[in-house]
Amino acid sequence: MKAGIINVTGYAGSELARILYRHPEVEITSVTGRSAAGQKLGEVFPHLSALNLNITEELTGDVDVVFSALPHKASAEAVIPLLTQGIRVIDISADFRLKQADQYAEWYGVQHPDPSYLEDAVYGIPELHEKEISRAQLVANPGCYPTSAILAMAPAVKLGLVEPDIIIDSKSGVSGAGRGLSMSTHYSEVNENTMAYSLSGHRHLPEITQELSLLTEQTLELTFLTHLVPMTRGILSSCYSKLKAQATDTASTSVSHIREVYEEFYKAHPFVVITDTPPQTKQTLGNNQCLIYPTIDPRTNRLIVISCIDNLVKGAAGQAVQNMNLMYQLPEETALESLAVYP
Amino acid sequence: MKAGIINVTGYAGSELARILYRHPEVEITSVTGRSAAGQKLGEVFPHLSALNLNITEELTGDVDVVFSALPHKASAEAVIPLLTQGIRVIDISADFRLKQADQYAEWYGVQHPDPSYLEDAVYGIPELHEKEISRAQLVANPGCYPTSAILAMAPAVKLGLVEPDIIIDSKSGVSGAGRGLSMSTHYSEVNENTMAYSLSGHRHLPEITQELSLLTEQTLELTFLTHLVPMTRGILSSCYSKLKAQATDTASTSVSHIREVYEEFYKAHPFVVITDTPPQTKQTLGNNQCLIYPTIDPRTNRLIVISCIDNLVKGAAGQAVQNMNLMYQLPEETALESLAVYP
Amino acid sequence: MKAGIINVTGYAGSELARILYRHPEVEITSVTGRSAAGQKLGEVFPHLSALNLNITEELTGDVDVVFSALPHKASAEAVIPLLTQGIRVIDISADFRLKQADQYAEWYGVQHPDPSYLEDAVYGIPELHEKEISRAQLVANPGCYPTSAILAMAPAVKLGLVEPDIIIDSKSGVSGAGRGLSMSTHYSEVNENTMAYSLSGHRHLPEITQELSLLTEQTLELTFLTHLVPMTRGILSSCYSKLKAQATDTASTSVSHIREVYEEFYKAHPFVVITDTPPQTKQTLGNNQCLIYPTIDPRTNRLIVISCIDNLVKGAAGQAVQNMNLMYQLPEETALESLAVYP
Amino acid sequence: MKAGIINVTGYAGSELARILYRHPEVEITSVTGRSAAGQKLGEVFPHLSALNLNITEELTGDVDVVFSALPHKASAEAVIPLLTQGIRVIDISADFRLKQADQYAEWYGVQHPDPSYLEDAVYGIPELHEKEISRAQLVANPGCYPTSAILAMAPAVKLGLVEPDIIIDSKSGVSGAGRGLSMSTHYSEVNENTMAYSLSGHRHLPEITQELSLLTEQTLELTFLTHLVPMTRGILSSCYSKLKAQATDTASTSVSHIREVYEEFYKAHPFVVITDTPPQTKQTLGNNQCLIYPTIDPRTNRLIVISCIDNLVKGAAGQAVQNMNLMYQLPEETALESLAVYP
Repeated sequence: MKAGIINVTGYAGSELARILYRHPEVEITSVTGRSAAGQKLGEVFPHLSALNLNITEELTGDVDVVFSALPHKASAEAVIPLLTQGIRVIDISADFRLKQADQYAEWYGVQHPDPSYLEDAVYGIPELHEKEISRAQLVANPGCYPTSAILAMAPAVKLGLVEPDIIIDSKSGVSGAGRGLSMSTHYSEVNENTMAYSLSGHRHLPEITQELSLLTEQTLELTFLTHLVPMTRGILSSCYSKLKAQATDTASTSVSHIREVYEEFYKAHPFVVITDTPPQTKQTLGNNQCLIYPTIDPRTNRLIVISCIDNLVKGAAGQAVQNMNLMYQLPEETALESLAVYP
Repeated sequence: MKAGIINVTGYAGSELARILYRHPEVEITSVTGRSAAGQKLGEVFPHLSALNLNITEELTGDVDVVFSALPHKASAEAVIPLLTQGIRVIDISADFRLKQADQYAEWYGVQHPDPSYLEDAVYGIPELHEKEISRAQLVANPGCYPTSAILAMAPAVKLGLVEPDIIIDSKSGVSGAGRGLSMSTHYSEVNENTMAYSLSGHRHLPEITQELSLLTEQTLELTFLTHLVPMTRGILSSCYSKLKAQATDTASTSVSHIREVYEEFYKAHPFVVITDTPPQTKQTLGNNQCLIYPTIDPRTNRLIVISCIDNLVKGAAGQAVQNMNLMYQLPEETALESLAVYP
Repeated sequence: MKAGIINVTGYAGSELARILYRHPEVEITSVTGRSAAGQKLGEVFPHLSALNLNITEELTGDVDVVFSALPHKASAEAVIPLLTQGIRVIDISADFRLKQADQYAEWYGVQHPDPSYLEDAVYGIPELHEKEISRAQLVANPGCYPTSAILAMAPAVKLGLVEPDIIIDSKSGVSGAGRGLSMSTHYSEVNENTMAYSLSGHRHLPEITQELSLLTEQTLELTFLTHLVPMTRGILSSCYSKLKAQATDTASTSVSHIREVYEEFYKAHPFVVITDTPPQTKQTLGNNQCLIYPTIDPRTNRLIVISCIDNLVKGAAGQAVQNMNLMYQLPEETALESLAVYP
Repeated sequence: MKAGIINVTGYAGSELARILYRHPEVEITSVTGRSAAGQKLGEVFPHLSALNLNITEELTGDVDVVFSALPHKASAEAVIPLLTQGIRVIDISADFRLKQADQYAEWYGVQHPDPSYLEDAVYGIPELHEKEISRAQLVANPGCYPTSAILAMAPAVKLGLVEPDIIIDSKSGVSGAGRGLSMSTHYSEVNENTMAYSLSGHRHLPEITQELSLLTEQTLELTFLTHLVPMTRGILSSCYSKLKAQATDTASTSVSHIREVYEEFYKAHPFVVITDTPPQTKQTLGNNQCLIYPTIDPRTNRLIVISCIDNLVKGAAGQAVQNMNLMYQLPEETALESLAVYP
């Protein structure tokens, strides 16, 4: 299978190249970049020298599947012509994640280039939409924060264990902000520093709301707050919600009950692991797992769920390859078998 | 004024020495350590060589005021004899923070050596107990997390702006875990890693509950979760609570109203700064400020308060010196004037 | 092929497990630990849960090949009984690296348990001793610093390009100090800190001297200085030596000549890459490459060679697997194909 | 005394403001910036809010002394008009450090705006040029690397202990690269990464050569190589040079002799400390010390000198204030008394 990567020069794009290099069924035949067009991939990313590819401005040759790692809007514009040619696309940008074009306009500040694609696009979180993904032409790869938040809360919301009031407090490494230069990714500014940001509302909130709302009749009241912590990779989300009264009638057994519910929910999904001890972001470094630890604060009867992912793997490129595997009926774990790099 | 530091060899103790070195009214005359007794202070901490002090097993000579930076239980045992001699004490351990001896026993797993001191001890958060501190013989210096959490929520709780349901999600640098060796402070384990810990309940919770409960008739329902992030110094607490209906009748002005309430509450307190933009832990590095940013999540009508401190300064040694200044009617900011070291 | 890992609970041991998990010809059948005996491997290292192994005190069952990641002396004692049974061993400790037992005694402060093995043991740097490794029963896996230093200087020394006076200034991440707790691996002490250490002589010096001396008639005068930098993985060595007069007769072409010499020297060795630009440790994170950049300081006519490795992969576990591959006539890169994790 | 800071918005400029805030004899009356002109200083740097200053495009009002923290060339152009008005200037840029205009042109790639100032400008390393500084109108504040290198080698060179062949291997934190955005200061690129850079020659080399050459008749052969390590502040330089034969006739006592020489050399200079143990960059964090540890590699008879500074303090702003103190016959340590922040 021939694969193309649009905008290989960002962190999601280069991570895709790193992962697909191991894929026995995929040959990367074309990679594009903007300012780096004309260079060899290994000049921009020495760790990818083995791929021996040239960065071009546009995709070249035939491709069966295309990953787009462009920023929003630019991605839709690049991807729509491919869709009309029948090429299957996994879009890592935000362009096809939201079902409502007005939400897109509200959060991204631009009109959607072609809202007609929003309905057919499948939100690519395999643990919730496996069947749709397997048939999709266009998969909208989830945001990094939403991946950690949705997987953490989906079982509790779906099974009606919690009240609609949910707080998601997420901590992310700096690579989530991408490879573009900015004061907030300048080493001396963010090193040895922790900060909250986007307090008036982060763009990943509507995705989380959309996906969790699909699982319940309740109208959710989500507060989602993002933080930057001084590390390169990793997201840890701490999720809080009151348990419903009926969910906790036998206090002494409720944690084990919650754990069972979670294990059952994800039993067919190899990349979600319900852990015995609180997980750490480093336990996911470089691999495609989402580690989830659900527990209960006994003093307030609140459900607390901790989830960890590598924002560039399960939060971006790894999940994209997982989606591709499903789209082509390949074993879901192909090219994603590596254990985390630790320490 | 002659000051002694018990257990100068931990991070709170060495930070006390660093700060008091600048204090024009204080001479450090005696510093103790356990395994390091017999060494010069500058051998253990080269950055403190200028102090030219010997570490002894017990305090030597006369002292007017003593800071104890021993672990809990050991601290009470060391400090009580001094109290009976009339020496004024600022205890940085947890031994005199909780008013209820049974709470102490529950959270620290040992009986309190002498609960009779608990009533007279003053919880040393100057922004709430300034007068009592000025007259106290024994000040219980607050924990690092409680300092950030209590200062963040005190105005909202005191003025009845919020519901009793409060979530405090705190992120701390590693120095808060002290200078003792452990796997959870081993560089390769915690670097490039974020984790939640003490999910079944952190020892700082009862302090926070005690102090915030003093400000309200309501029975608070606090969830407090602690996280370790890969940096040496700094705590950022993100606090969440629903605004009461009457607190938000004029939605369009409510953030500015909340900010006014906070500014008014702390206007006489130089170390608490209500910031215009979300604060960052690094903006407090090495100084005694607590930066607080209150805002409202407009979608859920939830109060969000972000607070930042340096856990070793406002969270420990700096606040101890601030307390000492108040106890001796010195200007509150003496020896604490330094600006943060940035970047 | 059945493999055992002695002392899987250190960083070299756990990294071996991570790498061998991918090896199509190897089944890890037994892993030992000391204090962790009785636990599951995944309890100690959650990222290795997929291996589903129990840690035992001694090796269990039949094994074809054993990796020992014990500290020196303990390793020889554990390994010698296996050798007498005919089992092939790759020893990651320092116990069989030095050919002279008196040197071992001098540098490690203990008598060697059985010097008779020193002659037959092969120093396991595949780029220099490939043939001997392929036939060896006992391979002494090189130290992390020596790997970076020897590979950097071998071509220049072997081909007589430089004077015997060589300075190797190495910078290492903290994981090289192992998983044992110490003040010099305590997060708050080493984070945001760079230091030189072992100024009176680092134990890896005699290895470097031994191996480089095999390549020349000259008596080398090596100064080797080690530094700790605040990162988990990676070693960068900066090596300096005056070029001999004849090596530089055509000044304008000498850098390209040196590069050619290096490329020729390593052309059959896939894990050594002569880079076009100065390499960075991160370009080796998690993979088995040694990146080498030779150049000349035109003002002093000094050869400067920069080399980078991941100290736990090419500097320990990866090289051990590379050695095993050679011992069993497997393709040298088996299980070592992963690209570096970047950023 | 009224002081102005030109280009307060870089790291050297903001650090000057932080330090001068404590200076009892100095009032900062004017601070300039380029893109930030019109903003309050506290908007750009919240940690400097207490200074309550507005950033302007040009200096305003009368000033007695001006610090320029502009980049090279721009700094000379801004400073020369002030000099003609008789204002005393401490220039933190490279514009007046080199005595030879052709060297300036060679290394900085531009003609010097007015070479006539080069002779009168004093190279502001107080430990070598104290008297000239006290009388100077224009002080050229040294580069950060040169400060660490010159102070490390000056005694050995001056007293003829070493051969002219000197290698300086320096490791720097990232703040030395300034506040300007670039790929090489992008967090995800430099975090967990060590690299060598400027292998064809770093601009700080001619300064080092110039100043060390003033101390000897020998023609020095300096190799100077710079490295970036993942921390914000700090430089550690490891310096290597062969001892001359006569310098080491009594091998057993030579280290102590070298130490005595160094201690004698710096005995009148409070900011240079000859340490008993190898120093660490963190022991200088936020303070103006240069820690120096001279020793001898007994196997090769090579002098090794380790030096540590905070690149923004002794390497920039602190040394500038030290120079100002000398220019105005103030105690040299005024405003520079703070102990290092540790850990």
